[in-house]
Amino acid sequence: MAEFKALEIVQKSPNSQVFHLRLNNPSHRNALSHDFFAEFPKALSSLDQNPNVRAIVLSANGIHFCSGIEVKYLNSLRSSSSTDHGRERERLRREIKRLQGAISALEQCRKPIIAAIHGACIGGGIDLVSACDVRYCSKDAFFIVKEVDLAITADLGTLQRLPRIIGYGNAVELALTGRRFSGSEAKAMGLVSSVFESKAAMDEAVEAIAEGIAAKSPLAIVGTKEVLLRSRDMNVEQGLDYVATWNSAMLPSDDLKEAVSAHVQKRKPVFAKL
Amino acid sequence: MAEFKALEIVQKSPNSQVFHLRLNNPSHRNALSHDFFAEFPKALSSLDQNPNVRAIVLSANGIHFCSGIEVKYLNSLRSSSSTDHGRERERLRREIKRLQGAISALEQCRKPIIAAIHGACIGGGIDLVSACDVRYCSKDAFFIVKEVDLAITADLGTLQRLPRIIGYGNAVELALTGRRFSGSEAKAMGLVSSVFESKAAMDEAVEAIAEGIAAKSPLAIVGTKEVLLRSRDMNVEQGLDYVATWNSAMLPSDDLKEAVSAHVQKRKPVFAKL
Amino acid sequence: MAEFKALEIVQKSPNSQVFHLRLNNPSHRNALSHDFFAEFPKALSSLDQNPNVRAIVLSANGIHFCSGIEVKYLNSLRSSSSTDHGRERERLRREIKRLQGAISALEQCRKPIIAAIHGACIGGGIDLVSACDVRYCSKDAFFIVKEVDLAITADLGTLQRLPRIIGYGNAVELALTGRRFSGSEAKAMGLVSSVFESKAAMDEAVEAIAEGIAAKSPLAIVGTKEVLLRSRDMNVEQGLDYVATWNSAMLPSDDLKEAVSAHVQKRKPVFAKL
Amino acid sequence: MAEFKALEIVQKSPNSQVFHLRLNNPSHRNALSHDFFAEFPKALSSLDQNPNVRAIVLSANGIHFCSGIEVKYLNSLRSSSSTDHGRERERLRREIKRLQGAISALEQCRKPIIAAIHGACIGGGIDLVSACDVRYCSKDAFFIVKEVDLAITADLGTLQRLPRIIGYGNAVELALTGRRFSGSEAKAMGLVSSVFESKAAMDEAVEAIAEGIAAKSPLAIVGTKEVLLRSRDMNVEQGLDYVATWNSAMLPSDDLKEAVSAHVQKRKPVFAKL
Amino acid sequence: MAEFKALEIVQKSPNSQVFHLRLNNPSHRNALSHDFFAEFPKALSSLDQNPNVRAIVLSANGIHFCSGIEVKYLNSLRSSSSTDHGRERERLRREIKRLQGAISALEQCRKPIIAAIHGACIGGGIDLVSACDVRYCSKDAFFIVKEVDLAITADLGTLQRLPRIIGYGNAVELALTGRRFSGSEAKAMGLVSSVFESKAAMDEAVEAIAEGIAAKSPLAIVGTKEVLLRSRDMNVEQGLDYVATWNSAMLPSDDLKEAVSAHVQKRKPVFAKL
Amino acid sequence: MAEFKALEIVQKSPNSQVFHLRLNNPSHRNALSHDFFAEFPKALSSLDQNPNVRAIVLSANGIHFCSGIEVKYLNSLRSSSSTDHGRERERLRREIKRLQGAISALEQCRKPIIAAIHGACIGGGIDLVSACDVRYCSKDAFFIVKEVDLAITADLGTLQRLPRIIGYGNAVELALTGRRFSGSEAKAMGLVSSVFESKAAMDEAVEAIAEGIAAKSPLAIVGTKEVLLRSRDMNVEQGLDYVATWNSAMLPSDDLKEAVSAHVQKRKPVFAKL
Repeated sequence: MAEFKALEIVQKSPNSQVFHLRLNNPSHRNALSHDFFAEFPKALSSLDQNPNVRAIVLSANGIHFCSGIEVKYLNSLRSSSSTDHGRERERLRREIKRLQGAISALEQCRKPIIAAIHGACIGGGIDLVSACDVRYCSKDAFFIVKEVDLAITADLGTLQRLPRIIGYGNAVELALTGRRFSGSEAKAMGLVSSVFESKAAMDEAVEAIAEGIAAKSPLAIVGTKEVLLRSRDMNVEQGLDYVATWNSAMLPSDDLKEAVSAHVQKRKPVFAKL
Repeated sequence: MAEFKALEIVQKSPNSQVFHLRLNNPSHRNALSHDFFAEFPKALSSLDQNPNVRAIVLSANGIHFCSGIEVKYLNSLRSSSSTDHGRERERLRREIKRLQGAISALEQCRKPIIAAIHGACIGGGIDLVSACDVRYCSKDAFFIVKEVDLAITADLGTLQRLPRIIGYGNAVELALTGRRFSGSEAKAMGLVSSVFESKAAMDEAVEAIAEGIAAKSPLAIVGTKEVLLRSRDMNVEQGLDYVATWNSAMLPSDDLKEAVSAHVQKRKPVFAKL
Repeated sequence: MAEFKALEIVQKSPNSQVFHLRLNNPSHRNALSHDFFAEFPKALSSLDQNPNVRAIVLSANGIHFCSGIEVKYLNSLRSSSSTDHGRERERLRREIKRLQGAISALEQCRKPIIAAIHGACIGGGIDLVSACDVRYCSKDAFFIVKEVDLAITADLGTLQRLPRIIGYGNAVELALTGRRFSGSEAKAMGLVSSVFESKAAMDEAVEAIAEGIAAKSPLAIVGTKEVLLRSRDMNVEQGLDYVATWNSAMLPSDDLKEAVSAHVQKRKPVFAKL
Repeated sequence: MAEFKALEIVQKSPNSQVFHLRLNNPSHRNALSHDFFAEFPKALSSLDQNPNVRAIVLSANGIHFCSGIEVKYLNSLRSSSSTDHGRERERLRREIKRLQGAISALEQCRKPIIAAIHGACIGGGIDLVSACDVRYCSKDAFFIVKEVDLAITADLGTLQRLPRIIGYGNAVELALTGRRFSGSEAKAMGLVSSVFESKAAMDEAVEAIAEGIAAKSPLAIVGTKEVLLRSRDMNVEQGLDYVATWNSAMLPSDDLKEAVSAHVQKRKPVFAKL
Repeated sequence: MAEFKALEIVQKSPNSQVFHLRLNNPSHRNALSHDFFAEFPKALSSLDQNPNVRAIVLSANGIHFCSGIEVKYLNSLRSSSSTDHGRERERLRREIKRLQGAISALEQCRKPIIAAIHGACIGGGIDLVSACDVRYCSKDAFFIVKEVDLAITADLGTLQRLPRIIGYGNAVELALTGRRFSGSEAKAMGLVSSVFESKAAMDEAVEAIAEGIAAKSPLAIVGTKEVLLRSRDMNVEQGLDYVATWNSAMLPSDDLKEAVSAHVQKRKPVFAKL
Repeated sequence: MAEFKALEIVQKSPNSQVFHLRLNNPSHRNALSHDFFAEFPKALSSLDQNPNVRAIVLSANGIHFCSGIEVKYLNSLRSSSSTDHGRERERLRREIKRLQGAISALEQCRKPIIAAIHGACIGGGIDLVSACDVRYCSKDAFFIVKEVDLAITADLGTLQRLPRIIGYGNAVELALTGRRFSGSEAKAMGLVSSVFESKAAMDEAVEAIAEGIAAKSPLAIVGTKEVLLRSRDMNVEQGLDYVATWNSAMLPSDDLKEAVSAHVQKRKPVFAKL
């Protein structure tokens, strides 16, 4: 797991089923670089396939969570190998879709992903955490939907996911003004679920929350994540039919038996790996 | 109206157009039982068709609103009459859809339904209140999206309706952690519209609110509920066209005349039954 | 710009790129009249096409922002030239769609529109501000989704747009009860982004915010508004593909170059008109 | 099974798993009557639940398949118990939805339904057969989307289902002109799958086709019908995910084992009831 | 009606309720010009509002129906007033949307529009007729989805509407190959409803068909067009609910009474203007 | 290009921009094997990225095009490494989605893909060709939607794509009966665009058609494929907006200049690689 340049994967104890995926470019305030976009989907895919992983915490090394996409990398995307405007744009569209794919890998990973945010979370950082399942931050965290100040229409997911998380009006205001907002405002809007006094307090609390999720039925957790994502893009009737079909497949499991019997025996259930 | 085992229908005064539908299995903390699922859609259908009913309050007898689906009943759903896995799953899918139908009857009822929640509102209880039109709770109320702790992907509507009520991020966090949250948190997220000091205070206030709704034009109330539900599952342009079509049918009514003339005459309007 | 009866367009200083569109029927508390519905889309279209306009503030003259649709005008809509019920309804449907079109012109205008609300914002006033991009209010502001009290199912956009701004549950409660709510409640729900101490304080602050937006890249602002609106009515995957296609066209611009070079040179960027 | 007035259910031989549901109002050319709309969903529900039924043939007694909705019944729908226009329309809307529900019962029935059409198939008859899974006709059959000639916008499904069966252009032309078209034209458009020389020939052939379907795996047949219907109302990606989820539940069955082993043993498979 | 340069509006006899809208640029084979795009939506709007118009026939003067968008005009669209690539693209996008709007005016017009096609129908000509309600052609007609041969991705509606009319596979083949196809092939695919021996024969037959539609209930015709269009973009359940709501408004009309009474009296019904 | 076991990639002449992708498991009638599903997406991805490729022909070596999924491979999918039913189903769902992904790679490839079908095209073969852009067959070809006879609900795309190609009714009939149909029937339904007298005749004609497409503007071809696919899953208004945005990026290209200037100079245009 030492193969990454822009990332770090950490398992705090050998038995823990919580894995930490960390942005690891602290000298550049974890700006999203060429390496990041290449490595991130690979890291998530390996965590998804690793049966020892039941919950993932996305956090960052250094003082800030993420300062957004690296300006150098942004510039390289603009430079074209083609002299034709049409071909240049077609290539650019594919490049943007490739970057989007790296972020959307957070949703394609079956395991739950919890963002733990401290310091700055700017631009591409918002794209990143919006695609996580749950978000927490420390008191020093602040957020900026920054793209508009770089003359960019945000294109890595913020404009799609943020309105569904914090409401359409809040998302528009933040995206048009590019203003800074605090963790407590993020909490009030529903962007983060709690604000902790310090990074240390957050890390401890998030570890506990992640361990809590990791101790639950992997089938139920994976199903909850997938059904929520699928239902987001369907109407209610379709979502209901979808989960009925899902549960007709996944419900009759050892996990259900174990949960019921642990409940009766007043003990903690123990679930097999997925 | 004495025919129900798991439910009770109460009209507080003979002239009141507010009817109370009560979960009535207090010894089992109003766990959702076989009887409940059979009786609930029938009760709602009869209230829908009864022209004396203009507003419905869903509440519960006993100490808790609802402890979720009865474990005994859950187990019975799992036991199959078929030895074939395929047939067992096809039957299970239909069973889940039948249970979903009982909950969705809250939306199919044209009359507005207000949930008044006290004590525990857990698992299936959340499915239930998410399908109501408006929700209030007392200070002692607490909520848990519990399914994941029973190794179940929640399948009676919570994963579909909750994100639209409290935002996607909040819904994911509650569904993955299965953590307990209070009425004041429910209020901050938009799950309930007010938290009252006590069940008594809530009952009094909700009665007044329900009477207020019952005194309004039944056509406008029914239209508002239906257009909101329909628009939830359409895009904005489609929703606008739908309500224009709806109002071209329903607007030119005695209710509009009465509302305007009462407004001019500075008196309370009186509307005919629907 | 003196041609409007129900509206006023004001540019506070000749160089300002913020234009003010004001409801100007204060003696009737800015009730939405026949004139309003005729003039409003024209005013927005002219502001959209005017290259000097980069941000629009929608506010109101007089004591109240808007008391809703004028009762006299409402009555005129009901009176029919046809004796046939069918033809009367077909005409009424088109009338409602025409009124809706006047409100939706706020979304069709490419430039960002900020509502600055004081005093009463009632009925049609809510339809109006729900279709703006961002909303602010002063402390004296109050809001009522009033239609149901006039025996009307709200048909100018509130039932479609409000749930996406404040959540489905909040929107249902406000629409069914027709209760009054304050600016601070509007803020908690996400309907307004800030509540200011006074109209004067709001005007000053909103001017600054609008100037801030007007100073940003017009291409990025227009793109952000359009992509947000389009993504609202698509699923996430479609919205991502849409913005990738959008940016393949609009990103390689002078604005991006100017933003990057201003960033490097630590100066304010200056963007050409759109 | 003798309880129906407007319908007849026939099982040609005691062992056959093909059941015939016949319109049985030949003296009125099987006009769709009050009795029909009451009985039809009940008949389909009983056939759906009857494990002996694996395929259903919908046909008609007498000279014509169906002459559309009975004019007498149509008139009764128009007469109102209410003097208020608004209430009258609200009631009318529910009545239309009830009639639609009777037709849509064809889709809610899990078992495949084959329409065998002879003579006239007019107006409501088209609504009826459009909601069946497969359609055949005899040479004497003719079709008219008749509603427009009764000053009615067809409201029982033709305008929704026909374009998906025969293409949008063909459906518009038939609905606007109300012209008569033959079985061979219906075949060319994809409305029927074959045209037979005579009713007798059709009955024999359809019996064989239905027996063929009835001999196949009930799980696969039910799944194919449901997945087709669900996928019709989703995009392709959603439909693919849906069927993957469906098959993860329903595929590992005795039917698959039996089909594979019969294939290997070169014998006809025999499947258990559903 | 003499005000148009690129169009001609003809009423064959003063009492006829069929109006002819004709492409009138025969010396350029009715290429779609700047004038066409300016005049076409105005012409359709005036026909829509004119109560004497009940059906519209779209045809063309000269030897060919339409040779597509004028190359000169196409070139003018490419030339930009801006030196900035971003602004140029934003303007181009609006230009394309304006041209699309001219074509979509065919759908926004409530009255039915029948295309009568002879000679060449190429490129933009296909966009045009795909947005009509019904299409007929003469034997000499031929069709080419030509855009790809001009290095253009067709952007005026063909790629959206054609697949719904002739099936996805047929539309893809025609759009990728740009091959010529005949009227009889167009008929087989469902693009036209009949092929006539000559333009004269077509004109006579289409006149009769249009008169037939014009003699029907205007309410039912307008309703059928609108409900078909709306249902095309909804799922079946939503379309059913929509038409139930529509008919609750529009069905109880003088037209229905007249249709029923004419039916009883075995005479032709006479309907009032819309 | 010799690395594939189940496939073969052939370029008929070194300068040709048409590449042939061939199913190459003729001894098993090109049954879709483990190797096929692993190699097929890789082959398509490499063809997509290869700038020398402008059109792809999918055909098959041996007597038959494709006999469907290999029974041996089908059985291996069923066998589970897990003893828990829930985990087994979750794994099975992922397996099915992986197989679907291999087929959908045909749509993800930007270059146009033409299926040339001879002999049997059965089960998975239909899934395969339904995801191609255009289809041709020789007279000896025959087709069977076979899954239902193996007790399987078809899950690799047929139930999603076929109804959009041949109409809903035709697709249902073929999927429920599993009957054999000929090339000429496939042509009448719109599944194939032409039926050729022999495989040799087809190969020659398809080569010419593919060369014709390869000679056109790559930007226009890629745009046409993508816009058609995207518009299939949107409503018409969304599709129009999408293509306007697309063309604002891709239209101003060297290809457009070259096409116009070749048109003026009456010569064949020559387009650069993409």
